[in-house]
This record gives sequence, C-alpha cells and structure tokens, in this order.
Amino acid sequence: MKTDIQIAQEAKMKPIMEIAKDVGINEDEVELYGKYKAKIDLSIWDRLKDKKEGKLVLVTAINPTPAGEGKSTTTVGLGQALARLGKKSAIALREPSLGPVFGVKGGAAGGGYAQVVPMEDINLHFTGDMHAITAANNLLSAAIDNHITQGNSLGIDMRQIVWKRVMDMNDRALREVVVGLGGKANGFVRQDGFMITVASEIMAILCLATDLKDLKERLSRIIIGYNYDDKPVTAGDLKVHGAMALLLKDAIKPNLVQTLENTPAFIHGGPFANIAHGCNSIMATKLGLKLVDYLVTEAGFGADLGAEKFMDIKCRYAGISPSAVVIVATIRALKMHGGVKKTELATENVPAMEKGFDNLRKHIENIKKFGVPAIVAINRFVTDTDAEIARLLELCRMEGVEASLCEVWEKGGEGGEELAAKVIEACEKESNFKFMYDVNESIKEKIGKIAKEIYGAKGVVYTAKAEKEIKRLEDLGLDKYPICMAKTQYSLSDNPELIGRPEGFDITVKEVRVSAGAGFIVALTGDIMVMPGLPKVPAAEKIDIDENGVITGLF
Amino acid sequence: MKTDIQIAQEAKMKPIMEIAKDVGINEDEVELYGKYKAKIDLSIWDRLKDKKEGKLVLVTAINPTPAGEGKSTTTVGLGQALARLGKKSAIALREPSLGPVFGVKGGAAGGGYAQVVPMEDINLHFTGDMHAITAANNLLSAAIDNHITQGNSLGIDMRQIVWKRVMDMNDRALREVVVGLGGKANGFVRQDGFMITVASEIMAILCLATDLKDLKERLSRIIIGYNYDDKPVTAGDLKVHGAMALLLKDAIKPNLVQTLENTPAFIHGGPFANIAHGCNSIMATKLGLKLVDYLVTEAGFGADLGAEKFMDIKCRYAGISPSAVVIVATIRALKMHGGVKKTELATENVPAMEKGFDNLRKHIENIKKFGVPAIVAINRFVTDTDAEIARLLELCRMEGVEASLCEVWEKGGEGGEELAAKVIEACEKESNFKFMYDVNESIKEKIGKIAKEIYGAKGVVYTAKAEKEIKRLEDLGLDKYPICMAKTQYSLSDNPELIGRPEGFDITVKEVRVSAGAGFIVALTGDIMVMPGLPKVPAAEKIDIDENGVITGLF
Repeated sequence: MKTDIQIAQEAKMKPIMEIAKDVGINEDEVELYGKYKAKIDLSIWDRLKDKKEGKLVLVTAINPTPAGEGKSTTTVGLGQALARLGKKSAIALREPSLGPVFGVKGGAAGGGYAQVVPMEDINLHFTGDMHAITAANNLLSAAIDNHITQGNSLGIDMRQIVWKRVMDMNDRALREVVVGLGGKANGFVRQDGFMITVASEIMAILCLATDLKDLKERLSRIIIGYNYDDKPVTAGDLKVHGAMALLLKDAIKPNLVQTLENTPAFIHGGPFANIAHGCNSIMATKLGLKLVDYLVTEAGFGADLGAEKFMDIKCRYAGISPSAVVIVATIRALKMHGGVKKTELATENVPAMEKGFDNLRKHIENIKKFGVPAIVAINRFVTDTDAEIARLLELCRMEGVEASLCEVWEKGGEGGEELAAKVIEACEKESNFKFMYDVNESIKEKIGKIAKEIYGAKGVVYTAKAEKEIKRLEDLGLDKYPICMAKTQYSLSDNPELIGRPEGFDITVKEVRVSAGAGFIVALTGDIMVMPGLPKVPAAEKIDIDENGVITGLF
Repeated sequence: MKTDIQIAQEAKMKPIMEIAKDVGINEDEVELYGKYKAKIDLSIWDRLKDKKEGKLVLVTAINPTPAGEGKSTTTVGLGQALARLGKKSAIALREPSLGPVFGVKGGAAGGGYAQVVPMEDINLHFTGDMHAITAANNLLSAAIDNHITQGNSLGIDMRQIVWKRVMDMNDRALREVVVGLGGKANGFVRQDGFMITVASEIMAILCLATDLKDLKERLSRIIIGYNYDDKPVTAGDLKVHGAMALLLKDAIKPNLVQTLENTPAFIHGGPFANIAHGCNSIMATKLGLKLVDYLVTEAGFGADLGAEKFMDIKCRYAGISPSAVVIVATIRALKMHGGVKKTELATENVPAMEKGFDNLRKHIENIKKFGVPAIVAINRFVTDTDAEIARLLELCRMEGVEASLCEVWEKGGEGGEELAAKVIEACEKESNFKFMYDVNESIKEKIGKIAKEIYGAKGVVYTAKAEKEIKRLEDLGLDKYPICMAKTQYSLSDNPELIGRPEGFDITVKEVRVSAGAGFIVALTGDIMVMPGLPKVPAAEKIDIDENGVITGLF
C-alpha cells in the first residue's frame, strides 16, 4: 500500500495559476509562491463584493477516538466528489502547524486519495503564515518587557501579564520559563511561558478578521495584562499594533493550493480548537463562497466543540451560515464509543456500535438545534462488516437523517459521489439557521446554554477563580462576546473518560479569560495543553531529504 | 528630501522573471515569490557547472564610526554603475534580520538611489529564510531537551550544553532564561539563552554550504554540547540533521531581487560578522559568478573583520578569490578617526582627516597582503569640502592606491561610474591572492597572524579559559579549522575606544569556541552581543500599514 506522501508525490498537479483562473481569480490577483502555491491579493474583494455567494457545507464529526474519523479526508474527498458531479466546488481548510509534524505523525492535509498538495510544502513552511504570526506575537512580547525595562509608564503589573511568547515547535521545556535573568542590562526577571504558535490569540484574530483594517483594530484591542490599578493594558497602548499588522500583511491573504484531483483548496489559518475557535480564516471561507457554488469546510475536533464554535463564533462574525452539515463517523469509532477496546475493533460487534451510536445521535440532534440539515458520512474501513453497515444506515434512517458510505481515502472523489449528491439535495432545502445564544446575554447564561443544549449537561459549576474573572469582565464591560469553550474533545462532557453519550454530569468552568482582540471569552473546563511535547522517538528522527531533494518520513 | 522608503516605493521594478531571463536564468529554474522576488532552483548548477566564472569584487570599509560609511549603498551603486558601463553585472548581499527593523532604524538594503527592492519585503519576511533557520535551530534545541527527558542515553551533560535557542527579534529578556520549569511533565530545569537568529551557527552553515549534501553533513557535525565523558555530542547523534536539512530545503536556494536600476541582486544569508563570518552565502556568490562578468559583494563591518574573514573563511571554502577590493571611506568618518566629535563633523578639518587616514592606510596595506588590488571609494557627503577631498585623493595617490569620489546615494549608478571604471581596470591586473594562514597551523599561530598582520597588534594574550578550550580542541582534533575572530568592529584593536590606527596593543582572547558545523573556530576578544535589545522608543512604534496597504515608518 502506498503511503500518503508517495501518493502525494505522484500527484499530477496543475500550475496553480491555472487552478486560480479556472475558479475565477484574475492573473493579477495571484501572488505565486513557487508553481503550486499562491496567495490571493486582497484587491480581489473590490471586484467580487456584489457577487452572489455559493452554498457553505460544514464537515464535522463525532467525538474523536483513537480509532480515527477522517474529517479532513472527508472534506477533501467531498470537494472532489462535488466537482465530479459537475458542480463548481472548492474546499477551505486550516493550515497545519509545523510543531506536530516533527512530533508524532500529524498534519491536516487529508489522506489517501483525498489530500491537498503540495503536501510537503503545506506541512512545512507553506507560505510563511505561521512564521509571520510567531513574529507578530513575539514582537508584542518584546515590546512588553522593553516597556517595563524603559520605565513602565503604563504601570504594567508584572504579576498580571497574560500575554505569552510562542514558537511553532513541540517543545515542552518552554512551557514554563523564567526570562530577564542576568542583571540590569537584561531587564526584569519574571515568569513566562511559550505556547505553540497556533495557540496565539493572533492566530484567532487572523482567522476572524474581515480585512486589514479590522485586523489592525483587533490587534490593538489585545489585552496583554493589567496595570497596578487592575485595568487592562492593550497592544494598542504599547503602540505596536501597526507594526504587528505590517508583519501580517501577507499572512492575511488566503492561500490557494489544490487537491489530488485539482479541486481548488483554500488553506488559511489554523487556530487551536480549544482555547480558540478551530476554523480556517473568514477571509478564505468568504472568498471561496464568492467564487464557487459549493464550498466545503471543516471545524476542529467533534461537533460539540468545532461545529458549535463554527456557528456561534465564526458564522456570527462573518455573517454567513452553512446550508448543510456533514457529520463524519466510522464504525470503528462508534464501537469504541460503545465500549470496545482499540485492539478488538476488527471484530464485528453490532450491539457495541448501536450503543456508541448514542454519541452520533446527540450530534445529529445538536445540528438540528442550529436549524441546519445534517448528513452522516460513514468513512468506510476494510474491517467494517455488512451487518454493521446495514444497521448503522438503519439507525440513521430512524433518526430521520441521510447517511452515506464514503470511500474517498481509497477512491478519491469517486468514493464520495453518493455523499455529494445527498449534500446537494440538503443544500436545496430551506435552512433556518440560528445561533445557540445571544451575545448580549450574561457570560453564565451563554455558557449554560452551550453546556445544556449541546453537551447535554445537567448544569455548570464555576470555581472561585472563574467567578472572580467573570465579575471582572462584567465590570470592565468585556462580557458581550461569544463564548469559546476549552474542553476535552474526547467526550461531550468535560471528562475525557465519559465516552458515548454521558448524562447527568456537570460542566466545571475552572477559569475564564478574555481574548478581546479575537473577540471571544474562553471558558476553560480543564487543563488545556498549549505547548505539546515530543515523544520518545520523534518523527524528526525519520524525516529526511536526500541530496537530490527527495523527501522521506513525512507521514 | 525623499526618504529611502519613498524612493523605493516609486521604483519602476521589472517583473523578476524578466530580470532572471536577462541574467541567463531559465524560466523553469525560477521559483516566484510574488512578482518581484524569486528563489533560484538548485537544478541550475548542472547546467552552469562548466561555465567560466566572472570577476569577483569585494566591497569593504574602514572601521565603522557613528558617522556612517555606506558600504551596502556603495555595493549596490557599484553594481548599477558597472551595468551603465555596459558590463554584465550583479550584486550579492546579506539578508537583513527582522529584529533590528523594529529596534533602531536598520536593514541592509542600501540607501538613496542605490537600494535593492522590494525594500519592504526584503526587510520583513522576504522569502522566509530567517524563519526556516529559526525553526531548524529550535528543532535541534527541542530535540536536546527531549532526549534528556526521555532518558538521556547519550549522557548529555546538562551543564555543558552550548547550543542555544534563537528568535529573530530584538528581545533582551530572552538573553538569559531558565527553561523546563513546572515539574516532571516539562522536563529538567536548566539555564539557557536565546540569540537572534542571524547569530545561529545554522546561518553560518547555510552560507558556507556548497550544496544540499554539504549542508546536511555540516548540520550533522554541529556540536550541541558535551557528554559526561567530556566528548562532543552532535546534531547527528540526535538524528535530527535530516529534518533540519528538510526545513532548510528552500532556504538554501539563492534569492533574486533587483536594484532600483534593475541590476540583478542575489540576497542570500546574513550571518553575524563577529561570532560568524559576516558574508552572504557561497551559493549566491558562486551563482552570480557563473552568470555575470562582474559580481559585486560585501562583507560585514570593517576590513579587519569582514574582508579578512571573507578571504580566509569564505573564499577558502568556496574556492574563489576577489579580483579587486573596494574600501569605502567617508571624509566625515576619517575625521572621527582623527579625533573630531560627531557634532563637529560639518566643519572643515584637513589635519584631523589626515590623522584619521591612518585607519584607511592600514586597511589598504592589509588588502595588499592578500595579494589583491585595492581601490578607495570616497562616499561623498554634502559637508565634504574641496580641500578635504583634494587632500584625501592626494593621500591615496601617495599610498599608490586608486581612489574615486562616489555619489551613488544621490545619483544612483551614474554617481559610481568613475569608481566602476577603476574597478574594471583593477580587475584586469594580475591577482596574487593568498590566505593569511594555513588551516593546518596551530590555533594560536593562526590567531597570531591575524592579530599581528591585520590588526597590527604587538601580541596575543589568552585567558585561562581560552587556553583550556584550545587544549580541548587540540585533543579532540578540532583545531584545523579557519579562525573566526569575534572582536569589536570600531577599532583595529579589541578596545572600541582605540580609533584611528592604534599601535603597541595586545589582543586578549577571552574565550574560544568551535563551530564544527560551520567549520571555523571562534576566538572571542570581548563581550559579544548575540541578542540585541530595543531602545526606549522602538522603531516598531512608528511602523504602520494603513487599510490600503500603504507602509510607513520603515527607515
């Protein structure tokens, strides 16, 4: 069997200029990065602003399990399949982070015959967006410490700095550090920490900004910490938001690549799906909608986190809504939700699958609460038995939801044609999209609705720390933002052990933080890892390039 | 008067593909980064390998003073002037670092009408080389800490790790840090520090590598520290040199841009001129030599550091040599070397200039020691008087060296035509290039020759620490490398206060380090700053981009 990178290296890519022209982008709006990658100049908006938008299709999933679901693969395959059915289609995905590439096998370029290419470049520096975000984030950090060293006229309280440095690397040694050692010339000693770049608020800002002006305004609103009067100090107060915006001037331009079947793919931005909203940029999604009839996109983690934030944060800021939502599930994963161990997944087990279906059922119910039609995509594995497949299709029918077997990993777009036909049908139906809450409700009301309606929780418990911060945000008038839940992706609850469809549980909000630049309030329900580590044998040890430039060990 | 950025923004750039074709690069060897930047694919070497090389012209300078000399400006202007005289010419420069751009006004793109463009891009992310180097450097750091955390089978002595993390930012708070805090999950606590990216050994390696294979071999030889038996531990021992090479696969390709007069400009690599050798990449220089009749390049700081390392390190590894060396001086700077204060430079002072000429005289003598013809370029300022100019030309004549007034800042290539004519004449002369020392001499012999012959020192004093390290390198057989002196740029001596032509001084070598990947031994004669800080009002506060993308505040 071929590896993903072998398939990718054999791809017959078209020059990206050709892909761009085919999708309706003018030559002078394309900035080439080599032959197969491009950025789209922002001047395109003037030309497209009055054009009608196509249909938006969101791909989400059940709560992830170690069995894997294949959400990105399905997204890519669905885009390819829609094109095969004669529809003008494109996909919009998040950019992968460099860090995980060198850790455990990772990346977000799809798999098998449903990949985006050039895969190596996308998984390495791509067009430099991550590096630009790293630079902008760390310029702000340098400005903070420099301001304090040079007299601290803003009265920044060094004990209350919330802005952290970032690096696009899996590097656990940087999680907690002390900076400023070495005496007067090196500034003041203080505790700090590094996050991985995708966890930076700047990544969330880049993905929620609607243009350069909005980007700069959001950057200026970033709260870096508090002064000795407990008032917020912003990037704007430090006067570096202009320089930060300049560092991001190219990063905000959507990137264009292609799938293995030459479907246009906008890959732009990749915020964390816990402390941020986990979707690609609004600019890429909106650009795609202006250019094609069907834009397929995805959101991070399962539907409880990814789809909810997609609707309540991204769609709200972008003024868009999905015409259909595809929920990806695998029989293997459903069996795990039904209690089967990873080692026993190859054995037929209809009762376990039925039990695990409860997880999928909850997500189907949730999507309906947003007023959008749902379709189940069953990402097929060789170990799936006929009995299991038949029963799963039946269960979906009983829920009143369309379901389709999907074989895009093995067959590319051809393996997703039935799914694509059902998506087209769903998009014809009238949608009654609505948000889960109003931003003007109180923080606790908003969190309560998400917890009860989406997670199925009994109630919400707040720690003293969270209560105190909610009070502070209310006092500062910073409470009218949407909520960004930071919760384990493995369970509908905040306990990763509670798989399937847990009931009667409380959600505990341990901490609340505002991302005033991004424009959301993060509610943390557990310890969220913002800087991964490397495993005993990192992928980096197997990754190589030979003297002829042939790359091995990626994926 | 127009600012540099205004002049740059008004430039009539040609599409870089056109510049590439004109200089003899095939379309399929060009990788576009937007319309005005490109990388040249390494496949070009096969086609050019048997082609005759053009003449190499090195631009260097007297010891820098606060008055400024204009070395980069002269380099760019000379390239433009040679083209005006009908010669096929190009320039090769170092890439600027992002950090200083946001600190004090900086950059290495020339000035006035002798600049490289697109200036904003070159001074920001350019083609991502710096970010790739940052990533490769920090992957190695992460691998070191991860190796220790995962059991430390190589027995790395945490007290003897010499590899530091880097960031392309002026950030004094990162000079000395403690990493790995927070308990078992975050690894072992240890002292570390960040350098600015250009100070990374990887930058020096990138600039000295002759191809991808050589790059990877050099990366594998990097010594990251020592084990408990005091034996070196390398990046190769950690098995991450392949992944590091992959991160650098595009960074090693020379970048092509253009000057304001459309002269091709290879801008590639930019190592520090103290702890590294301070020249652009060998690959860019050699590529330029294959393509044009006259390639003009520069080296960092004054001739005592820049030119010496250019000859003894870069030329040695590249197998090239300059046909002529241009020494840039200004009357203002010579007056400062003669004891005039910065505030009094506008006043005519022939005796002070004569006194300061001693500094230039020493550099002229030094270039002759390398067996290469020298030409003095007098970078003209409005305050220079006729009497001063006449006397300076006379002094040069008395030294038997050609000198030429240069007005490229104000007039572009036209202002450097006389200089260009003299350079062409010098290049026709026979050159008897020779190195200052043989690499097989002892470390002390090599340092001694540089100190006495180039700096004019009486002798060399070694601290106990330096003696110990020399002994270790000899024992390990790591002593047969060229020497990379890390010394103040402001004086021929190791004391920045001793301007002009000091005599009777000793050079004190405080510390010796090996850069086994780059392939040189660094001899440190003082405290070398490897991570700059930001000033009270950083340039970042004035740098901005408006909603239409118009950039202000750069330079």
